[in-house]
Amino acid sequence: MSATAIILAAGLGTRMKSALPKALHPIAGRPMLAHLLDAAAAVFDRMVIVAGPDMPGLAAAAAPHPVVVQHERLGTAHAALQAADLFGEGEVAVLYADNPLVTPATLRRLLDRARAGDAALALLAMRPDDPGRYGRVLHEGEQVRRIVEWADATEAERAEGLCNAGVFCAAAAPFARWLRAVGCDNAKREYYLTDVAALAAAEGAVVAVEAPYDELRGINSRVELAEAEAVVQTRLRRAAMEGGVTMTDPASVFLCADTVLAPDVTIGPNVVFGPGVAVETGAEIRAFSHVEGCRVGPGAIVGPFARLRPGAVLGKGAHVGNFVEVKAATLGDGAKANHLAYIGDASVGARTNIGAGTITCNYDGVAKHRTAIGADAFIGSDSILVAPVSIGDGALVAAGSVITEDVPDGALALGRARQATKPGRARLLRRKEKA
Amino acid sequence: MSATAIILAAGLGTRMKSALPKALHPIAGRPMLAHLLDAAAAVFDRMVIVAGPDMPGLAAAAAPHPVVVQHERLGTAHAALQAADLFGEGEVAVLYADNPLVTPATLRRLLDRARAGDAALALLAMRPDDPGRYGRVLHEGEQVRRIVEWADATEAERAEGLCNAGVFCAAAAPFARWLRAVGCDNAKREYYLTDVAALAAAEGAVVAVEAPYDELRGINSRVELAEAEAVVQTRLRRAAMEGGVTMTDPASVFLCADTVLAPDVTIGPNVVFGPGVAVETGAEIRAFSHVEGCRVGPGAIVGPFARLRPGAVLGKGAHVGNFVEVKAATLGDGAKANHLAYIGDASVGARTNIGAGTITCNYDGVAKHRTAIGADAFIGSDSILVAPVSIGDGALVAAGSVITEDVPDGALALGRARQATKPGRARLLRRKEKA
Amino acid sequence: MSATAIILAAGLGTRMKSALPKALHPIAGRPMLAHLLDAAAAVFDRMVIVAGPDMPGLAAAAAPHPVVVQHERLGTAHAALQAADLFGEGEVAVLYADNPLVTPATLRRLLDRARAGDAALALLAMRPDDPGRYGRVLHEGEQVRRIVEWADATEAERAEGLCNAGVFCAAAAPFARWLRAVGCDNAKREYYLTDVAALAAAEGAVVAVEAPYDELRGINSRVELAEAEAVVQTRLRRAAMEGGVTMTDPASVFLCADTVLAPDVTIGPNVVFGPGVAVETGAEIRAFSHVEGCRVGPGAIVGPFARLRPGAVLGKGAHVGNFVEVKAATLGDGAKANHLAYIGDASVGARTNIGAGTITCNYDGVAKHRTAIGADAFIGSDSILVAPVSIGDGALVAAGSVITEDVPDGALALGRARQATKPGRARLLRRKEKA
Repeated sequence: MSATAIILAAGLGTRMKSALPKALHPIAGRPMLAHLLDAAAAVFDRMVIVAGPDMPGLAAAAAPHPVVVQHERLGTAHAALQAADLFGEGEVAVLYADNPLVTPATLRRLLDRARAGDAALALLAMRPDDPGRYGRVLHEGEQVRRIVEWADATEAERAEGLCNAGVFCAAAAPFARWLRAVGCDNAKREYYLTDVAALAAAEGAVVAVEAPYDELRGINSRVELAEAEAVVQTRLRRAAMEGGVTMTDPASVFLCADTVLAPDVTIGPNVVFGPGVAVETGAEIRAFSHVEGCRVGPGAIVGPFARLRPGAVLGKGAHVGNFVEVKAATLGDGAKANHLAYIGDASVGARTNIGAGTITCNYDGVAKHRTAIGADAFIGSDSILVAPVSIGDGALVAAGSVITEDVPDGALALGRARQATKPGRARLLRRKEKA
Repeated sequence: MSATAIILAAGLGTRMKSALPKALHPIAGRPMLAHLLDAAAAVFDRMVIVAGPDMPGLAAAAAPHPVVVQHERLGTAHAALQAADLFGEGEVAVLYADNPLVTPATLRRLLDRARAGDAALALLAMRPDDPGRYGRVLHEGEQVRRIVEWADATEAERAEGLCNAGVFCAAAAPFARWLRAVGCDNAKREYYLTDVAALAAAEGAVVAVEAPYDELRGINSRVELAEAEAVVQTRLRRAAMEGGVTMTDPASVFLCADTVLAPDVTIGPNVVFGPGVAVETGAEIRAFSHVEGCRVGPGAIVGPFARLRPGAVLGKGAHVGNFVEVKAATLGDGAKANHLAYIGDASVGARTNIGAGTITCNYDGVAKHRTAIGADAFIGSDSILVAPVSIGDGALVAAGSVITEDVPDGALALGRARQATKPGRARLLRRKEKA
Repeated sequence: MSATAIILAAGLGTRMKSALPKALHPIAGRPMLAHLLDAAAAVFDRMVIVAGPDMPGLAAAAAPHPVVVQHERLGTAHAALQAADLFGEGEVAVLYADNPLVTPATLRRLLDRARAGDAALALLAMRPDDPGRYGRVLHEGEQVRRIVEWADATEAERAEGLCNAGVFCAAAAPFARWLRAVGCDNAKREYYLTDVAALAAAEGAVVAVEAPYDELRGINSRVELAEAEAVVQTRLRRAAMEGGVTMTDPASVFLCADTVLAPDVTIGPNVVFGPGVAVETGAEIRAFSHVEGCRVGPGAIVGPFARLRPGAVLGKGAHVGNFVEVKAATLGDGAKANHLAYIGDASVGARTNIGAGTITCNYDGVAKHRTAIGADAFIGSDSILVAPVSIGDGALVAAGSVITEDVPDGALALGRARQATKPGRARLLRRKEKA
C-alpha cells in the first residue's frame, strides 16, 4: 500500500523578515524543505508540496515532487485540501516545511501506527521544556481524548505537558472527508487542521505518537532557524565522530548534510564545510579551513587557512597550505602548494612543488583558460602562469617569472628582470623624500 | 525634574591583573564604562564619573561627562560623596562601572520607583543562581526590612535568595545627607554605601526593584569579563536575528555594540566585527571574515577569509574574496577583488576586476599615496600599482606588471620581463645541485 | 617512602575506530598519556606503563618511564600484574591512560589516604550525573562495604550514586598478592582489578576517596575524546584568565597544555595555539591567528589571519599582519610584515618594514637557504628575496624586484621591467577577444 506526505510550505514566514520563502532558508547547507523531503522519502512513497502563490524558487527546490498552490491563505486544513486530488489510495500524512528536523524513524512510527487498523488518526506529540502556547493533548496513554488550544484551556489543562505537533496521519479517504468538513467559525475565520482530530475522534480512536521536541520544533524566526541549525550540526558532528573522525573542537566545526568523512580523518578547530565534500582516510583538515565541492585524498593535509573551492581534487598525501585557494584544479599525489597561492582551472602533476605566491592567471577578462603542470616540476615562488599554458614534467620555473609560453619537459624557464644595485642610493632617496 | 547618575569607577580591579583601569576593559568593542554611560543616558539627565587618582585614560572615555577623583580609597559611600556637589536637584542613583550590563528599562523602573514619592530609597536587587557571599535583602514583597552582609547573616538569613546589587536611588538632598552620616566602624575602616539603606529606612520606606542577575553581575576578573562579553554578544546576536539577519552559527559571530546589519544580510560562521561596520540588505559576510570601520553595500559578498579595515567602502554587488585586505579604499558597484590582494588607499571603479595577487603599493617608507583605478578596468594578476598612480576607465594591466606611471583610459600597460626557456636545463641544474 | 603509579595503556580502544593506540590520541596538543604522566609525576616517584603488544609509538611517548607489555588481553588485574616486578617498596596505584584528566591534588589525596595506615586499600569514587552502568560503591561514609557491578546490582543498589572509578592504591606487597589471587570465573574469563577490593576488604578497611567526575571520566570514543578536550580547554582558559590574560571569547580560543601567556596579553576570538608558544606581556594575538612553536615579544601584534610556525621569534612591538606566514625567522624590535607575505628561514632587523606580498624564496627544490635582512631596511611590495641572500641595514628594495644578489647597507636595489603603455590597445584587445 502506498503512502503520501503532504508538505505544507505556503506559510509567509513573516517573522523571518526575509524576501526568501521560509521553506528555502538553509540548514547545514541545504534548504529546510530538502531536509524534510529526505526524511519523508525514507518512509513515504509520494510527496506533494503545498506552496504559496508567490514562491517561484520553491518549485525548483521541491522538484521532482509535485507542487500545488494555495492561492488564498485560509488555514492549514485549507492548505492540505489543495492537495486532495493527489492523496492517492493509502495513508496520508500532513507535514510542515518549517518542521524539517523530524527523523525517518519518527515518521515510520507515525505511519505504522496509522496503518495498524485500530485507530482512525495518528498524530505526533511532543513535550517541550517550555510548552508555552502549544495546544495540549489531553490523553490516557496513547489514546487522545481531546486537543485543546492554549487559549481555550483551563489552568488544569495547561498543566498537561504533552503538546500537539500538528502532524497528522490517516487513511486518504476519511482524511480528505474530514478536511472538507472543517469549518472556520473562529476569530481569524481560518480552517484549522487541528479540527480534524475531533472529526476523526467521532469515527474511531485518535492516538498520539510521542517524539522528541528537537525533532518537532518549528522554525518561525531567525533565532529558531539558528537553533535548528545547532540541532542538525550536533547530529552531524556526533555521527562523524562515531564513524571514527577526530574533531578537536567539534562545536567549532560546521558540516553540511552531505559531508563525507572517512575514519581517522582529523578535523581541527574552526573548519567550515560547504556542500559536496569528501575526505578520505588519514587526511587532515587543519584549523580555519573552508572547503566545498572538493575531494581530499588519503593522507592529504589541508590548511590551516586553506580554501578549497568546487572542483578541487587532492591526491594522496597532497598538501594545500596557508592562504592558498584551489578551484577546479587537480593536485596529483604528493603535490604541494603550501603558501599564499591561487591555483585555478589547473592540473598539477604528482610530487610537483608550487612555490609561495604562485598564481595561475586563468582569466583574461573575457574567458577562463587552463594551466597544465606536469609531474616532478618545481614552480619558483611568485611565478605567474598565464593560461592557456603548460609546464612539462620535471621542468623548473625560476622565482618571479611571468610564464606566457609552454615549457617543455625538463626545461628551465625564466621571465624576470635582472637586479641592479645602486650603492648609497637608499640613503639619498630618504633624504630627498624628507626634504 | 532632572536625575543624576553617579558612576563609581575608582576601583583598582586588582583581580583583573591589568595595567588598564577596570572600567576601560572592552566589551563588544567598547570600554565597559561606555556601555553603562549609554544605558544611563537613556534614563538620566546627567552622569558624573568618580575615578581613582591614577586613571588618565578614564577622563577621555568619560567625556563629555564630568569626572571627579576619589583621592583616597575609603569605600563606596566615600566615593559617591566626592560627587555630592554635582547631585543637582532631582534624584540621584549610584551605579558601578563594573556593572555595565544593566539595561535602560531596569534603570527606568528604579528611577520611577524612587520618584513615586512613597519611598525614601529604591534599590536594585537580584537572584543569582549561586547567591554566594552577596549581601541578602530581607524583605516583605518589595518592602526591604534590612540588608544583611553575608558575614553577619544567620543561616536562615543566608537562605534568602534576593541579593543586594548595591545600586541605590533616592532624592538628592537626603541621599547626600545619608552619605555624610555613614560611619567606618568596621574591619576595613571603610565607608560603605550599603549603610545608606539603614539610614534611609529610619526616614521612610526602602523598596527593592528586582532585576535579572545577568544585568547586575559584577566584573572583577578576566573570567567575569568574558562572561559579561558572552551576555552582551547573546543580546546583540538575538537583536540582529530578530531584525531579519541570518546567522548560520550565531555563537561563532562576534559583534560590536555599534554593528548595523540590514534585513536579509547573511553572516557565515566565524565572523568578527570590529567597531563601525554597516552592512546593507542582501549582502553576505562569509566565514572567517574580519571587518571593521567599513560599509558593505547591498548584495555585496565578502569573504571567506576577507579583511575589511577602516575606510573600506564596498558598492552594490561588489566582491571581496579570500585573503584580500581592503583599507581606506572604495570599490564601485560590481567591482571585484576575489583573491590574495592588498587594496589600500585606493579607489576602484564600477565593474573593475582586480586580479589575484594585486598589490597597491601605497607606502614608500615615508608617506602614503593613493591609487585611482577607473571603471571597467582589468588589472592582471600579481600586478603592482606603485602609488601615486592612476589607471583609466577600461584600461588593461598585463599580469605581473609593475605600474609606476599613469595609464590612460582604454590603454594597455605592461611592465614585465620576457620569458626565456632553456631546454634540458632543469635536469642539468638538479644534477649540479645534488653533486 | 616511594610510591609507584602503574598506568594501564593496553586497551585496544576499538570504539575509537582508529589505527592510533588510544593512549596516544591528543588532548590540548599532547597525547592523553602525557597528561596522565604529568599528573602522576607530581605525586608518584615512579611510573610504569603497561602497553599492548602492537603499540610501537607508545614506548616513545612513555619514555623515559619503563613499559611492560601485556601480551594477552586477560583483564585489568592481569594487566597490572605484568608490572609486579616494578612495584617497589612503597605504595602502588593503578591508573588508566584513558582517564587522563585526574589532577595531582586528587592523586595526592588518594596516596595520602592509602598511606595513613588504617586502611588496606584506597580507591577513587565519583558521582556522574548519569551513573549508567558504572559499578556502584556501597558505603558508609568513606568506608566501602562492597563494590557491586551494575549487572549484578539490585534496583536499590543501582540507586546508589557513588560509582567506582577503578583507580586503586595500596601497599605494594599486599597489592601484588591480591592481584595474583584474582580469579576469572566470569562470563568473559577475564581477571578484573575490581575483584581486588573484596580481597583487600578481607584484610582491612577499604576506603573511598571521592573526586569530581570530570577528573575521572573515561575516554572510549571520539565523542568522549572531544568532551575531555573541552574539559581541559576550560581549565586552561580559566587559568590563563586568572593570570591576567584577556580573552574576548574564551570558548573560541584553543590552547595547548604548554602555552605560556603573560599578564595583559590579549587574545581575540578564534585563535588556535599549537605546542610551544610563549607570549610576553602586552602582546596581542588577534582573531583567526594560528601560532605554534614561537615566541611573541612584549607589545607585539599578531594577526588577524597570521600564522606563526615553529621557530618564529618576534621582538618587542613587532607586527605580523594578515595572511602572513612566519617560519624559522626572527623579527627584530618594531619590525613589521603586515600583509600577505612569507618570511621563512630569515632574520629581519629592528624597525625594518616588509612590504605586502614579499616572499623569501628559501627553497630551490633541493635545499633550504637563509635570508638576512638588516635593521631599518625597507622591502618594497611583492619583492622576492632569493636565498641565500642578505640585505644591508637601511637598504631599499624597490617594489616588485627579484633580489638574487646581496644588497649592501644603504643601497637601493631594483630588479623589475620598465613599464610600457600602449594607448587604445585595451579596447582593441577586447574587440579581438570577442570576435
